[in-house]
Amino acid sequence: MSGNTLGKILSFTSFGESHGYAVGGVLDGFPAGVDIDLEYIQNELDKRKPGSSSLASARNESDKIQIVSGVFEGKSLGTPIAFFIFNENQKPEDYYALKDVFRPSHADFTYYHKYSHVDYRGGGRASARETAARVAAGAFAKIFLNSVGVDITAFTIQVGKIKMTKIAENIDKTTIDQSILKCPDPDISEKMMQQLEELKESGDTTGGVVECRITGCPSGLGEPVFDKLSADLAKAMMSINAAKGFEIGSGFDAASMTGSAHNDKISKEKNGKIKFLTNHAGGILGGISNGDTIWFRVAFKPVPSIKKTQLTIDYHGNKKEISISGRHDVCVIPRVVPVVEAMAALVIADHFLRNIHVHHFVNKIHPKI
Amino acid sequence: MSGNTLGKILSFTSFGESHGYAVGGVLDGFPAGVDIDLEYIQNELDKRKPGSSSLASARNESDKIQIVSGVFEGKSLGTPIAFFIFNENQKPEDYYALKDVFRPSHADFTYYHKYSHVDYRGGGRASARETAARVAAGAFAKIFLNSVGVDITAFTIQVGKIKMTKIAENIDKTTIDQSILKCPDPDISEKMMQQLEELKESGDTTGGVVECRITGCPSGLGEPVFDKLSADLAKAMMSINAAKGFEIGSGFDAASMTGSAHNDKISKEKNGKIKFLTNHAGGILGGISNGDTIWFRVAFKPVPSIKKTQLTIDYHGNKKEISISGRHDVCVIPRVVPVVEAMAALVIADHFLRNIHVHHFVNKIHPKI
Amino acid sequence: MSGNTLGKILSFTSFGESHGYAVGGVLDGFPAGVDIDLEYIQNELDKRKPGSSSLASARNESDKIQIVSGVFEGKSLGTPIAFFIFNENQKPEDYYALKDVFRPSHADFTYYHKYSHVDYRGGGRASARETAARVAAGAFAKIFLNSVGVDITAFTIQVGKIKMTKIAENIDKTTIDQSILKCPDPDISEKMMQQLEELKESGDTTGGVVECRITGCPSGLGEPVFDKLSADLAKAMMSINAAKGFEIGSGFDAASMTGSAHNDKISKEKNGKIKFLTNHAGGILGGISNGDTIWFRVAFKPVPSIKKTQLTIDYHGNKKEISISGRHDVCVIPRVVPVVEAMAALVIADHFLRNIHVHHFVNKIHPKI
Amino acid sequence: MSGNTLGKILSFTSFGESHGYAVGGVLDGFPAGVDIDLEYIQNELDKRKPGSSSLASARNESDKIQIVSGVFEGKSLGTPIAFFIFNENQKPEDYYALKDVFRPSHADFTYYHKYSHVDYRGGGRASARETAARVAAGAFAKIFLNSVGVDITAFTIQVGKIKMTKIAENIDKTTIDQSILKCPDPDISEKMMQQLEELKESGDTTGGVVECRITGCPSGLGEPVFDKLSADLAKAMMSINAAKGFEIGSGFDAASMTGSAHNDKISKEKNGKIKFLTNHAGGILGGISNGDTIWFRVAFKPVPSIKKTQLTIDYHGNKKEISISGRHDVCVIPRVVPVVEAMAALVIADHFLRNIHVHHFVNKIHPKI
Repeated sequence: MSGNTLGKILSFTSFGESHGYAVGGVLDGFPAGVDIDLEYIQNELDKRKPGSSSLASARNESDKIQIVSGVFEGKSLGTPIAFFIFNENQKPEDYYALKDVFRPSHADFTYYHKYSHVDYRGGGRASARETAARVAAGAFAKIFLNSVGVDITAFTIQVGKIKMTKIAENIDKTTIDQSILKCPDPDISEKMMQQLEELKESGDTTGGVVECRITGCPSGLGEPVFDKLSADLAKAMMSINAAKGFEIGSGFDAASMTGSAHNDKISKEKNGKIKFLTNHAGGILGGISNGDTIWFRVAFKPVPSIKKTQLTIDYHGNKKEISISGRHDVCVIPRVVPVVEAMAALVIADHFLRNIHVHHFVNKIHPKI
Repeated sequence: MSGNTLGKILSFTSFGESHGYAVGGVLDGFPAGVDIDLEYIQNELDKRKPGSSSLASARNESDKIQIVSGVFEGKSLGTPIAFFIFNENQKPEDYYALKDVFRPSHADFTYYHKYSHVDYRGGGRASARETAARVAAGAFAKIFLNSVGVDITAFTIQVGKIKMTKIAENIDKTTIDQSILKCPDPDISEKMMQQLEELKESGDTTGGVVECRITGCPSGLGEPVFDKLSADLAKAMMSINAAKGFEIGSGFDAASMTGSAHNDKISKEKNGKIKFLTNHAGGILGGISNGDTIWFRVAFKPVPSIKKTQLTIDYHGNKKEISISGRHDVCVIPRVVPVVEAMAALVIADHFLRNIHVHHFVNKIHPKI
Repeated sequence: MSGNTLGKILSFTSFGESHGYAVGGVLDGFPAGVDIDLEYIQNELDKRKPGSSSLASARNESDKIQIVSGVFEGKSLGTPIAFFIFNENQKPEDYYALKDVFRPSHADFTYYHKYSHVDYRGGGRASARETAARVAAGAFAKIFLNSVGVDITAFTIQVGKIKMTKIAENIDKTTIDQSILKCPDPDISEKMMQQLEELKESGDTTGGVVECRITGCPSGLGEPVFDKLSADLAKAMMSINAAKGFEIGSGFDAASMTGSAHNDKISKEKNGKIKFLTNHAGGILGGISNGDTIWFRVAFKPVPSIKKTQLTIDYHGNKKEISISGRHDVCVIPRVVPVVEAMAALVIADHFLRNIHVHHFVNKIHPKI
Repeated sequence: MSGNTLGKILSFTSFGESHGYAVGGVLDGFPAGVDIDLEYIQNELDKRKPGSSSLASARNESDKIQIVSGVFEGKSLGTPIAFFIFNENQKPEDYYALKDVFRPSHADFTYYHKYSHVDYRGGGRASARETAARVAAGAFAKIFLNSVGVDITAFTIQVGKIKMTKIAENIDKTTIDQSILKCPDPDISEKMMQQLEELKESGDTTGGVVECRITGCPSGLGEPVFDKLSADLAKAMMSINAAKGFEIGSGFDAASMTGSAHNDKISKEKNGKIKFLTNHAGGILGGISNGDTIWFRVAFKPVPSIKKTQLTIDYHGNKKEISISGRHDVCVIPRVVPVVEAMAALVIADHFLRNIHVHHFVNKIHPKI
């Protein structure tokens, strides 16, 4: 009810304030008997850590995961998987100065109006640190998805004013991993970096866009009315801090297209395989996966913590001028890419499990195109 | 679990196939003692009906609502409000010709792969007719919201290649109602109509974009992590048939802005009132309403039923050439505007009720900026 | 949230007041492709109808079911199954006399305090008529369960002071059906009838106990902590109007037994089959079915509508003396037996579907002892 | 879905195996701004610990609670309250001997059939140690309930063959606390102790019955159909390990009573207060609290771990003779009393919060009789 739980069969509950004892989560409904590679999970978590780059927050988060339950002798038990990521290197005193000030475009204002009593240290529960728990839970979901042939890859296509205009159909994961900004085009990546250096210099920040592609997903995932796969992906993405927009397949461009141009024709190949000639659908028709690649994009706003002076008010209604110094990223994009993958993995794994009862003969495996 | 229910305290369950006995729904969790104006509800439903325009499907849907339970002597009982809307004027024989053909960019393909046994008549459950139930439920939600001062207005800002470029801060509801296409700018509306006439002539269709604004919403609605108000709005909108994208406030434009330009400064007026100087947030910060106008946009794809010849296959894998004639809209936009409002109303009313327990002194009404 | 929905994968939403347009329900999550025998469903509903006996309410309920959605060409579609049972023969004027009086041990008092605005006609939503919708939904669940080999049989073991003391291990369904009171022992059934005649004479009523047995249920159903199969059965049974107690297997007798007497020893038969030597467990261990017969009992209170004069107060706090005449049963037991079966069927079918994802290899069918 | 979460607005998720890193939970939906007395919570946990008595398991559980999130500067934040209780003094080697044996009337058999991969150490998730998390969560719920005037008291009324026959209307909490067996009658308590000593001597165990009373609960709690307050209490109680039966108010005795004897007459006192002359209802009518004391009883089976030799089989189907030595209670009753209170507190607090939206004027506080 308080919205800290996502998913119906595979359900993930997140908890923790950024400067409390720990952030963490409980992943319930994970099937029993799955091999759990803890190193893989730690690796996923590490991807979310601030890079060596000068552009990211200098906060040293070791983000070491502690599994509390649900895994025994290297395999899942089918019971709730609880885990913690301790909050080390807490410096709450960094936040005392802004303790009772509404930082513009932060959640301070709305938390205060909703709860009256708030944890003012570093955003508390509104901190992006909460996404560490998402990435850990998503890593478990990925382990499950990998075992059934589903792969998820997210990457940066825009940072501030620099965009990729042509995006290859096949993206090489190594090129993504080699880019600090997780952009598969080295030239664009370089330009993005320059832009961020300039913004840092001027005490400013910017936003960006992440694209995500899911391959190997069987047809049939998603429920036809409210829990459309596209709707659940939209919700999961828009639940990430700083998200401002979501579009799938042709997205906003679809609005100006004609039906004859937009419709994805279906053809039968010589080898008998059924194929969509285009993929404006983004791999989802009527809310249900069609077996083609699922692809979507998520827009993120600029980091609101800027060094430049801003006008605001405090809790008591007094006007204030503030400049937010300290450990803050110039752009969320590189750190949000693994979060997009994690949220996609949680949604797809949940729907994979949800799709199993649809038929009377529940052990029937659905054909994939 | 099967995704036919939306909302947590105010929860709406939808049922019905387009050519079955009826479509309808159950709205549970609606407070007791609310005056229910049945004429208002019927009026809302009528807005979704095909207009007198030559551009819309000629299907004569009377869409008369029958209340089954939950309302007694003109007031809500606090028990489930069930209703149905009979499916009149069913001509299933219209659909026999395409009974076993996958119409491109329709849900036929995915329904067949998910369920094996499907109701092929007019899309069955995938038909946009299902949204009539949403509009009826949304009308109940609006009655509740109106009683607490919340207003919701959606309108057309793009049809195919014709867009509104300047949108006034205050939109007059009458200008919207006077436009067949529900566009508040009469000149643009006229151009949109011309474009649709041309498309109809050529047997083609197009998409569009709807904007929605919510005023009078108190601060504090929305839950901070997964059930962010923005995330639940995104899901609700992306659950509408043909939706391809969602953006809130600055939306995708936020990606290229700087933090200093994007941050909404907070100021205190001479009269003591707190004011955001801009509204890039779209009325939501950290997933929680901030008391400012909530505004977002939803993109819809072109109607996939086109007269132009298309290549496809049938259920047995045979290639087919089809031309879809019959009663089909050239563009979903005018009929989808009330659906956007209804879905917004369901989400906001649910979160209004969800926000009530947050404080220990549960009868405390939250201050509004 | 308002508690009109039961079940997680197979979820049933009930709606309707006893003297409104109809009572009915929506059964969501029912698998696609199941043959639906409408005659069987109507038959189940007929079992709940007042018998020809002079002991039951004379209300002539035809209880004809109307399927609204989710069934097409004789098979389930996997979409929500909505149905109505119209309220015929409504005589609301029968209730005007007691319109603003709290009938003792009826729900009038609590509904009024909870909702302020209530439907006073015949109990409104608190009427046992609501259970007609449960029986209809349960009939669908039984169709599914029968197809996987699960059988559910409920019968009367106590009416007022007359009890069955020895209950055979195998109960013949015909003997139950032949008894107006649904008691498998003809002699006891006869004595129960005599007692009820006497009570009727004196303007009084009584209660009773129903036993239910479930055979063919595979091991593995039920979730280990809160959603134990026994806990979900307890909730479902205690949700039936007039239920006062629930016990499973050895029940309250277990409290005075020793562990050595109570433990169900496990043995391996010569044919290799595993067998529990006793069944104090009631077929459930640690909340999970063990493959043995599930058996439990539910106690029901006397019908509170009595002809004898009672003291009470009205809505305004005035003292009243009332005598409730009209169409009322002397004992709920015969009509509640099919409701017990229906609720058991809904719980078992839901848990059957819930148990499917537990393993990684989701199509693996669990071994049954 | 996997049933590790209970409650709708105040929802509690439990996690942990008895010999893993920790057991714990997440309590979500707890209102913000409530003073949290950690000492009180630790005290409640201590009540569940094995007493100094020779009858209880000698396991030394310090059960120290660690709050992870949701509490800041002594007050609740409205965010999820996560906590854990470390598993100290783990001696898994104690369990190796019975690692692959199905202990009669334990959950070994059903866990193995459900999950294949199980944590065999001390029952893993099926261990009563899981209830420590329930008691901690219940302590938070009690803090909330105390602040609104609701009190919950559970006590022992039967251990094995020794029962209380007369139970006073007012039970003194001190007499309960002074009894090792939590029985308010010192003489009966003494007899119960003697009986347990004898059972211990003979290597056997027994069961018992706990009664629970809830006072100060306003009328209006509970939802009328499936989520009746009585139904949710039944589920919560039957979800406790070893529970076999539940009855409320007159319970199973109601079955043999007449309506005229069972009906609770309503009277108006001279001071204008409304009063029920009896309380067979157990404080709940039509599933909704009526403002009177809520009272119910729960039966528990004998501890299945006995020293006496038992026949069973192992995972491979081989017959075994076992005698379970080690740290085991002779009777669960004393340790289960705080668990009954905790589960009652979670259910009542959840329904208290759920009842708030029922009226249009949501800040209206319902009148209490």
